[in-house]
Amino acid sequence: MTFPRPEPGQSIFTLSTPLPVIDEDRLQANIARVQSYMDAHNLAFRPHIKTHKIPAIAQQQVQAGAKGINCQKITEAEVFADAGFQDILITFNILGKEKLERLSALNEKIADLKVVADSVATADGLAEYFAGKKPLTVLVECDTGGGRCGVQTPQDAIFLAQLIHDSPSLNFGGLLTYPKAHSEPVVEAFFSKTIEELNARGIACPIVSNGGTPSLFSAHLVPSATEHRAGTYVYSDRAMARAGHGTLDNCAMHILATVVSRPTPDRAIIDAGSKALTSDLLGMSDYGHLIDYPEASITSLSEEHGTVDLSKVNGKRPEIGDKIRIIPNHTCVVSNLFDFITFHRNGVVMRVETVAARGLVW
Amino acid sequence: MTFPRPEPGQSIFTLSTPLPVIDEDRLQANIARVQSYMDAHNLAFRPHIKTHKIPAIAQQQVQAGAKGINCQKITEAEVFADAGFQDILITFNILGKEKLERLSALNEKIADLKVVADSVATADGLAEYFAGKKPLTVLVECDTGGGRCGVQTPQDAIFLAQLIHDSPSLNFGGLLTYPKAHSEPVVEAFFSKTIEELNARGIACPIVSNGGTPSLFSAHLVPSATEHRAGTYVYSDRAMARAGHGTLDNCAMHILATVVSRPTPDRAIIDAGSKALTSDLLGMSDYGHLIDYPEASITSLSEEHGTVDLSKVNGKRPEIGDKIRIIPNHTCVVSNLFDFITFHRNGVVMRVETVAARGLVW
Repeated sequence: MTFPRPEPGQSIFTLSTPLPVIDEDRLQANIARVQSYMDAHNLAFRPHIKTHKIPAIAQQQVQAGAKGINCQKITEAEVFADAGFQDILITFNILGKEKLERLSALNEKIADLKVVADSVATADGLAEYFAGKKPLTVLVECDTGGGRCGVQTPQDAIFLAQLIHDSPSLNFGGLLTYPKAHSEPVVEAFFSKTIEELNARGIACPIVSNGGTPSLFSAHLVPSATEHRAGTYVYSDRAMARAGHGTLDNCAMHILATVVSRPTPDRAIIDAGSKALTSDLLGMSDYGHLIDYPEASITSLSEEHGTVDLSKVNGKRPEIGDKIRIIPNHTCVVSNLFDFITFHRNGVVMRVETVAARGLVW
Repeated sequence: MTFPRPEPGQSIFTLSTPLPVIDEDRLQANIARVQSYMDAHNLAFRPHIKTHKIPAIAQQQVQAGAKGINCQKITEAEVFADAGFQDILITFNILGKEKLERLSALNEKIADLKVVADSVATADGLAEYFAGKKPLTVLVECDTGGGRCGVQTPQDAIFLAQLIHDSPSLNFGGLLTYPKAHSEPVVEAFFSKTIEELNARGIACPIVSNGGTPSLFSAHLVPSATEHRAGTYVYSDRAMARAGHGTLDNCAMHILATVVSRPTPDRAIIDAGSKALTSDLLGMSDYGHLIDYPEASITSLSEEHGTVDLSKVNGKRPEIGDKIRIIPNHTCVVSNLFDFITFHRNGVVMRVETVAARGLVW
C-alpha cells in the first residue's frame, strides 16, 4: 500500500503531522559557513553522514568542498559508495567475519576506504582477514578525554600504529579522536606527542582527524590536525545551540506537530511523542523547543503524544488543531526515525528525500 | 542494494550485531498468560499493536482470543486492515482533512472501526466530515488521572457522549481511558458515575475500555470495564518488570550487541547505542539490563556506541568480540527503530518478520 508523501509546491503548513522538515536556506548556510571556516584554516573537512543519512545532502557537502565522508556503519558506507562516494572513513572498530567480508568487498569497490582500530584485537582481526587482499587503511583511534573508544595514551597509540605499519595487509592511515568538546589543548598535546614519536620512527601520519560539532569553530586550535569531522552542524539542533554552536536560528530541522487535545487550561497534548522527537535530553530538562510558544515546555512524552505545560505562557495559548513547530533536542536521532525527510524554502516544499541509510542493522 | 537478514536455522549467537531478537516461547507465554487472565475475568482483550507493529504477531494475539486490535495512527490501522483485521480501535483524536479522508476510506473498508474524542472540537470535526457517509463510531476518552488526553470529569464525559449520540453521522461507542498504573478504584469511580448518568439518559455504553500493561493483572478491579487494552506485555521489558508486571524472565526481546572496545579495565564499549536501544529511561538510571553481567551498567549512549561501566563486576569481565544480551528499558520504541525483527526458539532463528507499520508518518 502507498503512504502519503508531501509534493513539491505544497505549503508545509498544510501537511499532516507529525513531520520533520528541513529549511533549505538554513541547511545551505550551515554547509557554507562551516566549509568556509575549514577552508580559512586550511583544514580538510569530512562531514559525518549519520545526521542525515541522505546521499543528496552529502553531495551538497562535497560540492561545497568537503574532502570525503564519515560513516559509522558498514551498511551506511555501502549506501554512500553505491551513490558514488569514493573517500569514506568508517569510525568504528570492525569485528567478526560477516562484517569483515562486507568491509573487504567495499574496499575493493571504492578508491579510498578507511577504518579505525583502538586495540590489538581489532587490528589483528583486520590484518588477518585482509591478508592477500587489497590492503586496508587503518587509523588509530585515541581517547583524548571523550571517554568512549580509543587508546588511552600516546605510548599506546604509537604501539598500535607500529603494529599496523608493520602489517603487510594494512596501511597505517594516521590518528583520530572524538574529543570532549572545548578540549582543544588536550587533543593537540596527545596528537603532537604521538606524531613526534612516529616521525622519529620514520612512520608517516597522513591523516590526523579531529571531530565534533560543539566546538567546531575552535578546530584551528588543534594545529596537528589535518582534518575535522562533524555531523550535527548540517541541520543543527537545540543541544548544539546550547553547547555554543550557533543559535536556534541556525537550526534547519523543525518538527511540525498539531495540538490534538487541551484537557486543562495549562495542558496541551501534541501529536509528536518519543516516536517523532526521541527521548534524548542531552542535559536538558524537556523534549524540544516550541518556536511559537517559547515559554511552553514539553514535559513528558509517550510514544505518539507529547505533553506540553502552558502554565508559563502569558499570551495566547494554542488551540486544538493549531500547528506548532518544534526544534528537536537532537536532530540525528530524529532523522533515524523517518523514512523520508521533507525540504522546504520559505514554507514551500522543494523536495522529499528518502533517508536511504536508516534502519540498516550494522 | 540488499542488506543482510538472518535466515531460519541460524544460531542467533552467530548473527552480526546490534540486533533485536524475540524469544518465541516467551512471546507465546506472554500472550497466553494475559489472555487467560482476561478470559477468567470475562474481560474482552484488545492488544495494542504499537509494541510490535507486525500483523503476524497480532494474528497470534487474536488466535489466542483477543477481540480486536488497538492502533495509535491511521496508517498503522491501514496496514492492519490490509492484513485482514476488521475490529480496530484508533485511540487518537483525529483532526484535519487529509487524516479524515483516510479515516473515512478505512471506515468503508472494515467492519468495525472506532476512534476516540475528548473535545467538542474533535467530535464536531468528525461529525461534519462523516455527514452523509457510513457513520463512525466514537468513544469518549476520559482522563482518570493519567494526565494525558481525556475529558476531566464525568460531567464533561456525559456532555460529549450526548453530543456524539445526537450526531446523525456518529455512533456513540462508549468510554475509554489510559489510566495511571495502579489506580483502579479511581478509574472505576469515573466510569461507573458516567455510565449511571448515561443510562439515566437512555444512552447505551457498549464499550468501556481500560488500558495499560503495568497493572494489567488488576484489570478485574474495574468491574465497569468491558475490555482492556495493552501493548507492552507481549514482549515486555525492563520498565514493566520494575513496574511489577512479570519479571525479567518474561522479557521476550533481547538486544544482541558486541563488545567493540575495552579502553580501560572498568570500561567496555558496545555496538548498541541510542539508535538501537533509544534513550528512554522511564525512571531508571541506565539504558538497559545486561543479562550476562547484571552488575554492569550502560551509563551513557551515543548513537552507535554504548558505554558500559564494569567497575562493580567482580567475576570475569567481557572481552573485545564477546557477544552480550541486553533487556531494553522500553521495547516499543526499539521495535520502531528496526525494519525487521528476528524470532528464535532456544537461540535458533525461526522467522524474520518485517515491522510493517513502522516509519509511517501519521
